[in-house]
Amino acid sequence: MKCKKCGAKASVNMRQHKLALCKEHYLEWVPEQTARFIKKYEMFTHYEKILVAVSGGKDSLGLWDILVRLGYQADGLYLGLGIDEGINYSHESQRLAQKYADEHQLKLHVVDIEKEYGQPIPVLADKSHRGYGKPCAVCGLAKRHEMNRIARDLGYDVLATGHNLDDEAAVLFGNTLAWASEFLLRQGPVLPSADGLARKVKPLCRFYEREMTAYCLARGIEYIYEECPFAEGSQSIYYKELLNQLETARPGAKLTFYLRFLEARKSGELFIENNVERAHLHPCSRCGQPTSAPDICSFCRMIEKVNAVTES
Amino acid sequence: MKCKKCGAKASVNMRQHKLALCKEHYLEWVPEQTARFIKKYEMFTHYEKILVAVSGGKDSLGLWDILVRLGYQADGLYLGLGIDEGINYSHESQRLAQKYADEHQLKLHVVDIEKEYGQPIPVLADKSHRGYGKPCAVCGLAKRHEMNRIARDLGYDVLATGHNLDDEAAVLFGNTLAWASEFLLRQGPVLPSADGLARKVKPLCRFYEREMTAYCLARGIEYIYEECPFAEGSQSIYYKELLNQLETARPGAKLTFYLRFLEARKSGELFIENNVERAHLHPCSRCGQPTSAPDICSFCRMIEKVNAVTES
Repeated sequence: MKCKKCGAKASVNMRQHKLALCKEHYLEWVPEQTARFIKKYEMFTHYEKILVAVSGGKDSLGLWDILVRLGYQADGLYLGLGIDEGINYSHESQRLAQKYADEHQLKLHVVDIEKEYGQPIPVLADKSHRGYGKPCAVCGLAKRHEMNRIARDLGYDVLATGHNLDDEAAVLFGNTLAWASEFLLRQGPVLPSADGLARKVKPLCRFYEREMTAYCLARGIEYIYEECPFAEGSQSIYYKELLNQLETARPGAKLTFYLRFLEARKSGELFIENNVERAHLHPCSRCGQPTSAPDICSFCRMIEKVNAVTES
Repeated sequence: MKCKKCGAKASVNMRQHKLALCKEHYLEWVPEQTARFIKKYEMFTHYEKILVAVSGGKDSLGLWDILVRLGYQADGLYLGLGIDEGINYSHESQRLAQKYADEHQLKLHVVDIEKEYGQPIPVLADKSHRGYGKPCAVCGLAKRHEMNRIARDLGYDVLATGHNLDDEAAVLFGNTLAWASEFLLRQGPVLPSADGLARKVKPLCRFYEREMTAYCLARGIEYIYEECPFAEGSQSIYYKELLNQLETARPGAKLTFYLRFLEARKSGELFIENNVERAHLHPCSRCGQPTSAPDICSFCRMIEKVNAVTES
């Protein structure tokens, strides 16, 4: 297999794009494509300040690397979740995020959940009795809350996450199996900003997971190989496996599924307009972040519950 | 496992409904449910004449049996497709359809494609070069055309087919993976009548395939076990297998997928109204059936092409 651009030996073959590239041209192609997606979905401009949610994994470190290479003003945010599970997960992922930042002289904000709220994620989850024995729901809630808080407090315009196509297609698949209207009408590469909420964007949403792996390997970016230990057996991993079966039978199926959805949403040929009112958001009386819950937001309520349990 | 109704030994266990029944109560339950679906989706009344498309398989014979047991005026239509493939498929399926009709003193119309149009389905498909070497596209076209023609010529109000949940969910899955708007906005248990087109209904759309198998076995209905030999390797069978995986992991997933789709369609919370105009249908200048194609309908065009090839 030869590189389509220069004829040298290809190191990445993308059947879904009928495209093979050598390492050098692959490292050009990925940012070019990313720039195209950023423009196509009107994610942000070079004048805006971007906060990249960095987990230490290949997607978020790859994203940060690409954005910096494209000349965007992108700082990182690492959230210390306090997940250990015998593999020192959080500690190791923080080390790798910090290593990347240091090597490239980039600014990485580090926020530690335990320092801020007294307990690491697994304990918060346990004490708040949310999520049926898994900390994933509380973790998601905390991450959304903290990312928004930091973006707002530090004056970032945009919050960028490293969700790739496999992530997005799996979420779409789950929402579709349940025909979850509210989520289907909202899912996309850009969630517009609202009062006190930064715009959220997913510049990697059209890259296959393996494309991001290849990018990080080719760039020599050291990232944490392990998935979060709590992800094992999750619905989302199950959906990814099903979609991978489909992809193997028909290369490109996953991308088509996601892109045709975005097209159908945009064209108005299938779905109604998203008429979810953002108007009913009001500031949480505790943290000031926008919430649709009465009085205080879900995150503050969770913390309150944990504190009550801990003190009693 | 005990029958929920009488406590006797259950012979059918439906995990998806959390319901186990003995043979006797299962044979009551299936028609009761069917009657409920007929009413819920406003399929037809006892005053209307129903033509059941009978293939000799479990679904269509089961459907005919249920409708007759429920007191509906239901005659059968068997279409002789001329499929042999070394297993005498059409001949055997016709024999079983006729056997059921004779044993129950029911009227079965038999229409033979070869007698009507000079060639059996595989030859029509071959000569018309449709469907990439598989006769399935031509077979579908011919079945739709002939069913409509007979229903209209013989004055039936409704055309009922034996599509079960597995069939419907597989079609929905395929349409969803491609976000095929036109099909998604139309798919459902009832296709309303239009000028010269009988209403089409699928009273078994909420029964799992295995529920229909169990019904026919319990009723002692002899049906053809073989699938059409041309179905092997089809997209639809592939989707059925994927959905069966999902169903195994989460009993009821297939039913939820289909029912939530129908609900979302009906509620208007997700999809736009189906605004496909039926107004642009006009009668085919050859057969008189409604068509959106200019001048003659796709079926007549196919037959014309085959005749031209055959004569030359």
